[in-house]
Amino acid sequence: MHTDLEISKKAPLLPIAEIGKKLNINAEDLIPYGKTKAKIPLTYIDKEKYSKNNLILVSAISPTPAGEGKTTMSIGLTEALNKIGKKTTVVLREPSLGPVFGIKGGATGGGYSQVLPMEDINLHFTGDFSAIEKSNNLLAALIDNNVQNKNNSLGIDPRTVTWKRVMDMNDRSLRNMIVGLGGTTSGVPRETGFDITAASEIMAILCLAENFSDLKKRLGNIFIGFTYNKEPIYARDLKAHGAMAALLKDAIMPNLVQTMEGNPAIIHGGPFANIAQGTNSIIATKTGLSLSDYVVTEAGFGFDLGAEKFFDIKCVSGRLSPKAVVLVATVRALKYHGGIAVADLQIENLEALEKGLANLEKHIENIGLFNILPVVAINKFTSDTDGEIDLIRKRCEKLGVTVEVADVWAHGGEGAIALAKDVVATVEANHVKFTPMYDWSLPVEEKIDIIAKKIYGAKAIDYTSKARANLRKIERLGLSGLPVCIAKTQKSLSDNPALLGRPKDFVVTVREIEIAAGAGFLVPITGDIMRMPGLPEHPASEKIDITDDGTIEGLF
Amino acid sequence: MHTDLEISKKAPLLPIAEIGKKLNINAEDLIPYGKTKAKIPLTYIDKEKYSKNNLILVSAISPTPAGEGKTTMSIGLTEALNKIGKKTTVVLREPSLGPVFGIKGGATGGGYSQVLPMEDINLHFTGDFSAIEKSNNLLAALIDNNVQNKNNSLGIDPRTVTWKRVMDMNDRSLRNMIVGLGGTTSGVPRETGFDITAASEIMAILCLAENFSDLKKRLGNIFIGFTYNKEPIYARDLKAHGAMAALLKDAIMPNLVQTMEGNPAIIHGGPFANIAQGTNSIIATKTGLSLSDYVVTEAGFGFDLGAEKFFDIKCVSGRLSPKAVVLVATVRALKYHGGIAVADLQIENLEALEKGLANLEKHIENIGLFNILPVVAINKFTSDTDGEIDLIRKRCEKLGVTVEVADVWAHGGEGAIALAKDVVATVEANHVKFTPMYDWSLPVEEKIDIIAKKIYGAKAIDYTSKARANLRKIERLGLSGLPVCIAKTQKSLSDNPALLGRPKDFVVTVREIEIAAGAGFLVPITGDIMRMPGLPEHPASEKIDITDDGTIEGLF
Repeated sequence: MHTDLEISKKAPLLPIAEIGKKLNINAEDLIPYGKTKAKIPLTYIDKEKYSKNNLILVSAISPTPAGEGKTTMSIGLTEALNKIGKKTTVVLREPSLGPVFGIKGGATGGGYSQVLPMEDINLHFTGDFSAIEKSNNLLAALIDNNVQNKNNSLGIDPRTVTWKRVMDMNDRSLRNMIVGLGGTTSGVPRETGFDITAASEIMAILCLAENFSDLKKRLGNIFIGFTYNKEPIYARDLKAHGAMAALLKDAIMPNLVQTMEGNPAIIHGGPFANIAQGTNSIIATKTGLSLSDYVVTEAGFGFDLGAEKFFDIKCVSGRLSPKAVVLVATVRALKYHGGIAVADLQIENLEALEKGLANLEKHIENIGLFNILPVVAINKFTSDTDGEIDLIRKRCEKLGVTVEVADVWAHGGEGAIALAKDVVATVEANHVKFTPMYDWSLPVEEKIDIIAKKIYGAKAIDYTSKARANLRKIERLGLSGLPVCIAKTQKSLSDNPALLGRPKDFVVTVREIEIAAGAGFLVPITGDIMRMPGLPEHPASEKIDITDDGTIEGLF
Repeated sequence: MHTDLEISKKAPLLPIAEIGKKLNINAEDLIPYGKTKAKIPLTYIDKEKYSKNNLILVSAISPTPAGEGKTTMSIGLTEALNKIGKKTTVVLREPSLGPVFGIKGGATGGGYSQVLPMEDINLHFTGDFSAIEKSNNLLAALIDNNVQNKNNSLGIDPRTVTWKRVMDMNDRSLRNMIVGLGGTTSGVPRETGFDITAASEIMAILCLAENFSDLKKRLGNIFIGFTYNKEPIYARDLKAHGAMAALLKDAIMPNLVQTMEGNPAIIHGGPFANIAQGTNSIIATKTGLSLSDYVVTEAGFGFDLGAEKFFDIKCVSGRLSPKAVVLVATVRALKYHGGIAVADLQIENLEALEKGLANLEKHIENIGLFNILPVVAINKFTSDTDGEIDLIRKRCEKLGVTVEVADVWAHGGEGAIALAKDVVATVEANHVKFTPMYDWSLPVEEKIDIIAKKIYGAKAIDYTSKARANLRKIERLGLSGLPVCIAKTQKSLSDNPALLGRPKDFVVTVREIEIAAGAGFLVPITGDIMRMPGLPEHPASEKIDITDDGTIEGLF
């Protein structure tokens, strides 16, 4: 079997101007980065068009080590929609560079459903992550500089500073540190740490910003900590937001690349799906919708995490309205939810599958809460048996939901023609009337209550005393009207990663509530959230190499 | 008076393909980054051509707060050479982003002698610094990961690890820190810190590498520290060099931009001039020489630091041979060397100038040690008087050195026609027979001795006991045959920044000797070297902004 990198290298790449032409972008307007990547100017966003064209969200059941293939399915579906005559762009998140050197494969699809050039997209791409990193770390340097310099001091209490530095690297040693050592000329000692760049609030901000002035406003609104007099300090108090926005001059523009079958792909932004909104930028989505009839997009992790935030934060903030939802499941992942170990997933097991279907069922119900009937896509693996597929079909039929088997890994767009037709039928029937789950103006606890009970299926919500104190602080700062972006494990519908399938009668514990005032949401934390991954014993970097002619090898 | 940014914005920018065309680069071979920046593939390096064409080095007297304008002069001279019919490319270092938010202006020239687009070049440019940063920090993560993971352990003693992380930011709080806090899953606590990216050994390596295989070899040779058994550990022992080189896939290619008068400029790499070689990449210089009759380049700080390293490290390593040297001085800087305060430099003072000329004289002597007679360029300021200029002229004539006044800030190439003609005359007379100062195979102490006594003018060299121990370690590791890259203050010819003019009878103290085995040199340290600058009380970032249409303001 060939690796994704090997398959990707065999695909002929079109010059990026030709991809732009398919979207009616003038060649002279594209800002090239090499020959097969370009940025699209913000002037291509057209409200009339993006309001009219069709947004399709691809989400998935609760993720398992077996893999669901949400991105691969999004790409394959895009190829298929183009094949059946619908001008379609896939709009995705940018992969994080850090995990490339750890264990994880790329985030550019797989097999014959990939976006290209995969090695560039998985490494530095067009520099957006680096720009976000610099913008984030400039603010950190300005904070510590203000603490250091007595003559220009805001009186920041360094013990209250919540702003961390970021680096796009899996580097566990940077999680917790004491900086500012070395005497009076080298800063004031304090505890802090680094998160991975995708976890930066700047990433979340970039992905929610509509334009430069909105970007600057959000950057200025970043909450940093308190003065010794208990006054809140925001980035604007340090006059940081102008320079931070200047660093994002190019990063704000969405990136155009291509799928393996030569269709347009827009890849832009990559916020975490637990502590942030887990989906590409509003600018990217609107650009795609301004330039093509259909946009296929995905939201991180399972429907409960990524899609809920996609709907209640991104769609509400950007006034976007999806016309169809595809829910991806695999036989293997459903059996895993039914209690089967990874090693045994290739063996037919109808009993485990039956049990695991409870997870799929709950996600279908959840989608219904937004007034949407999904199309279920079974991402085909060679080990799937007819009996297993049939079992899923029957359950979906019982729930009144269309289901299709799609084999996009092996066949690209050809493997998702039936799925594409179902999606078009859904869109053309126009029966999706998207409704958010909650009104942003509700009290914070009520917003959490709605999501935890209705989406996760919790019976009650518990708040630690720290979380209660956070609620009072949020009230005092006048930030209660922000939506909630609940940080929860992706592995379970509950806040306990061990509870697979469809957990019931559990209590969700809110441990603390973070403020992302710049991004414009609150982050209730319900478990240990990893914001800086580590490397494994044998990092993937050991196998990555480059030949004398500059060809990268060993990347996945 | 207009700022450099305002002036630069008025200059009409040619499409980068047109600049490439001037160098006979096929448009389809250029790798564009936006419309006015591109990378040049390594295949354009042509040994026959780069050996034949003419390399001109621009250096300067010991720098002062008054400013000498070495980069501005290099750009203006390039414009002038093109005006008089010599096909010339200016080859420069890339500016560091960090200082842009501190005090310092950009490093892209000034007035009517700038390289463009200045705001892009001064910010992220084509991402080279970010790639170097990632490559450096991947190695750091792999080291700490190896210390953490007992099953894949090399037995590294974390107390001996000298490899630091880097960030392109002025952030003094990162100079000294303890990382790895937070318990068993978050690394092993140890002391370390961050340097600014330009100070990374990866930067020095990239700028000395000839191609990918040389790059990988040098990366593998990076010395990290010792095991508990006192065995040396190199980057290759962590199988790090392949992935580190892969991260530099694009960064290794030189960047093509343009001067204000539409001539080619290649800007690539920016190592420090104290702890590293302080000059652009060998690949950039050779690319320039392969594509044009003349290359004008500069080396960091004064002649004693940058140019000595340019000659003894870069030229020897890359087998390059300069055909002329331009030594830049200003009336203001010479008066500063004569003891005048910055505030009084605009007042005519022949006595102080006379005194300060000793600095110029010593640099001219030093250039002679390489068997080269320089051309002195007086970088004109409006406060210069005829009497002052005349005094410099007379001194130069006495020394048998050609001198020209050049006003490139106000007049671009037109301001340096006479200088350009002198340079051409020097090249065509072919009387420069470049000879390095020392043979790399000499003992380390002897190499230090030659530079400190002959170039700096020291009467003796003192070694601390730490430096003596370092010498023994270097001997034991078999690295004595590497050239020496002495880290010294740029403010004085001596190792004492307070000694202006031409200090005499001083002793240079070598405090320690660092190993840059990957770059391929040793770094004798003779004073406090700042590797991570801080921000001032009122950082320049407070004034930087971006308008709604994405135009940057307040950058210098």
